Amino acid sequence: MDNFVFYNPTKIIFGIDTENQVGEEVARYSKKILFVYGGGSIKRTGLYDRIVASLRKSQVEFIELPGVKPNPRLSLVREGIKICRDNQLDFILAVGGGSTIDTAKAIAIGVPYDGDVWDFYSKNVAPQAALPVGTVLTIPAAGSESSDSSVITNEEGWYKRGVGSELIYPKFSILNPKIASTIPKNHVAAGVADIMAHLMERYFTNTKNVELTDRLIESTMKTVINHAPVVIRDPDNYEAWSQLMWSGTVAHNNLFSTGRVGDWASHNIEHELSGIYDVAHGAGLAVVFPAWMKYVYKHDLNRFVQFAVRVWNVEEDFFNPEKTALEGIKKLEEFFISIGLGVYLEDLGIQDDRLEEMADKATNSNQRKLGNFVKLDKNDVYSILKLAKRG
Amino acid sequence: MDNFVFYNPTKIIFGIDTENQVGEEVARYSKKILFVYGGGSIKRTGLYDRIVASLRKSQVEFIELPGVKPNPRLSLVREGIKICRDNQLDFILAVGGGSTIDTAKAIAIGVPYDGDVWDFYSKNVAPQAALPVGTVLTIPAAGSESSDSSVITNEEGWYKRGVGSELIYPKFSILNPKIASTIPKNHVAAGVADIMAHLMERYFTNTKNVELTDRLIESTMKTVINHAPVVIRDPDNYEAWSQLMWSGTVAHNNLFSTGRVGDWASHNIEHELSGIYDVAHGAGLAVVFPAWMKYVYKHDLNRFVQFAVRVWNVEEDFFNPEKTALEGIKKLEEFFISIGLGVYLEDLGIQDDRLEEMADKATNSNQRKLGNFVKLDKNDVYSILKLAKRG
Repeated sequence: MDNFVFYNPTKIIFGIDTENQVGEEVARYSKKILFVYGGGSIKRTGLYDRIVASLRKSQVEFIELPGVKPNPRLSLVREGIKICRDNQLDFILAVGGGSTIDTAKAIAIGVPYDGDVWDFYSKNVAPQAALPVGTVLTIPAAGSESSDSSVITNEEGWYKRGVGSELIYPKFSILNPKIASTIPKNHVAAGVADIMAHLMERYFTNTKNVELTDRLIESTMKTVINHAPVVIRDPDNYEAWSQLMWSGTVAHNNLFSTGRVGDWASHNIEHELSGIYDVAHGAGLAVVFPAWMKYVYKHDLNRFVQFAVRVWNVEEDFFNPEKTALEGIKKLEEFFISIGLGVYLEDLGIQDDRLEEMADKATNSNQRKLGNFVKLDKNDVYSILKLAKRG
Repeated sequence: MDNFVFYNPTKIIFGIDTENQVGEEVARYSKKILFVYGGGSIKRTGLYDRIVASLRKSQVEFIELPGVKPNPRLSLVREGIKICRDNQLDFILAVGGGSTIDTAKAIAIGVPYDGDVWDFYSKNVAPQAALPVGTVLTIPAAGSESSDSSVITNEEGWYKRGVGSELIYPKFSILNPKIASTIPKNHVAAGVADIMAHLMERYFTNTKNVELTDRLIESTMKTVINHAPVVIRDPDNYEAWSQLMWSGTVAHNNLFSTGRVGDWASHNIEHELSGIYDVAHGAGLAVVFPAWMKYVYKHDLNRFVQFAVRVWNVEEDFFNPEKTALEGIKKLEEFFISIGLGVYLEDLGIQDDRLEEMADKATNSNQRKLGNFVKLDKNDVYSILKLAKRG
């Protein structure tokens, strides 16, 4: 187990009707805010009206910034920064999923910064200050509601890059699982893959003596595996949604990273898929992760056996660990397929003409290696993308 | 699953040599502090010297308040409050275990309060302000290093009572598992029982649909069960200590209470034991908890079967759930005995002449009921204490 610092000050307000507390929570910080959201879905479901009513009740003024898209764009971030500066707004409220929250976080570090906000994402420049951010989560997936990270796509070249900083932990996040019941099934499924990926990125580690976090991660995977099919089948099942939504947050609040080194190669590889093809991040992960596993499992067969047995209830073949390990990977694929996801590039409409380009971009022309469990160069990434092809 | 708010802003700094960061961390808050600790053990081990060196290096002045005892006393809290007021100290550093940290928290809420600090513990008065507290933990047990609670004993009448408030989350807690290696084995064992009790108090609930937190608690119990015997046998095993120490914190940081109602009757009953007989809190819990289980298990046999199977690897007798449940309770007793704890009142030197008095005190003369899993009146508590007698 490694030395670590764990600090996560986000206040989580969880449960039925909790969105009606948003005005009160915001008012602790500001009376004049930027209100960021995506498209019309929050208006159709009535969530927008409830948020506005709660803000008005607490005399919070707001300027709206709608239009956040999946794989959120740098241009909208810049627009948000300008609005905040022009109107002296000093708090960002995000109502939506990971893209909306990541946009809010980017605006939050961009406003007090003299340079270009993209510096934080592209140049290893660390933010020194940030406006406070609050969130109302609509879909369990990205975990951004209590994470210290933000991922933004720069349309000039379609680079998708991330930043991490303690400064961008949301001050509060409101989670009402009931709100999730109106999400289209394919978005739910992609969100589930994202949650699983956050858990697996942390799980596959070379750090020794990590029983506690191993088991905590396995527990959360099992809970996700048990409840995801329920919400897909029965979107009005509040109890299943509540298990899934809280799992999504816990998966990514960094408790499960304590004392261990995560991998994150699959995330980096996927960013090239969604950056270039604009597929949903979770849908991309459902394709990349099994391919990554098939490429690296021999590096630590025992860990893949543990994954198969403890997470997927695979009956261990004590004389053939490789068979057991591969059975676990197969179970993961079957799970993704069972909730409506594809596990091959072709399922995302991606042909093989740009695989090398993606491998090149992901590794900065073979200048950086990806991952920690196994360090991957450009050729490795290319091989993984080939493994992600059907047949 | 119930609605909940989860907020835990304590910064955890974990690992080898981390105590040398204490000066730097304290200096973010204050340059003139109260330094609370217990007896001579931190001097014998050299920890005291390292703390003092780190404080001096960061130009932090301090006044010492040594002398914290297990089941920490109100009189010392009052002394600490007076020292802080007389010398304008505005930060409390606790170096020790739960008793030292709870003393620091009590001083922290006492200093800015006009009335008597015991009001918070005895009269349902909520603290409105608190000095910041930081800790260097020496023994995994109480979980006070990242909890919102403090338990103090009033020597006038030997009442042991607790308070909970967001204001008393430590600002930081430093955990170096290496420091724990010099603790006497009986203290270690009592600490382990306390950790298990924190997990079990949360586990035994009537709240439905709590799979995630059920599994997270089970994971932590399994980790404690696997590593406690190792540190008892081999106190220099850093990796085992690190698993146990981090488990002790995670067990009590309230993540595992999210969306569910805990029980806490065993804690309340035990407080009368350690209040009157001054036994170690954990040693008392090892006696009370199995007796409580034997008294209540029929209330939700399924939960006790799950506990037996998932935590203790009991092979389920599908035709006799009661046998499976009782086997789980027996495994818990065997575990406590294996690490050197007694599971009967006689093992603590407690005879049966004051059982009724304790039942009476614990229930405020039958004016309050204890617990949530099963609500216990004075007679129930008396019956549980009788069950805690040998044979």
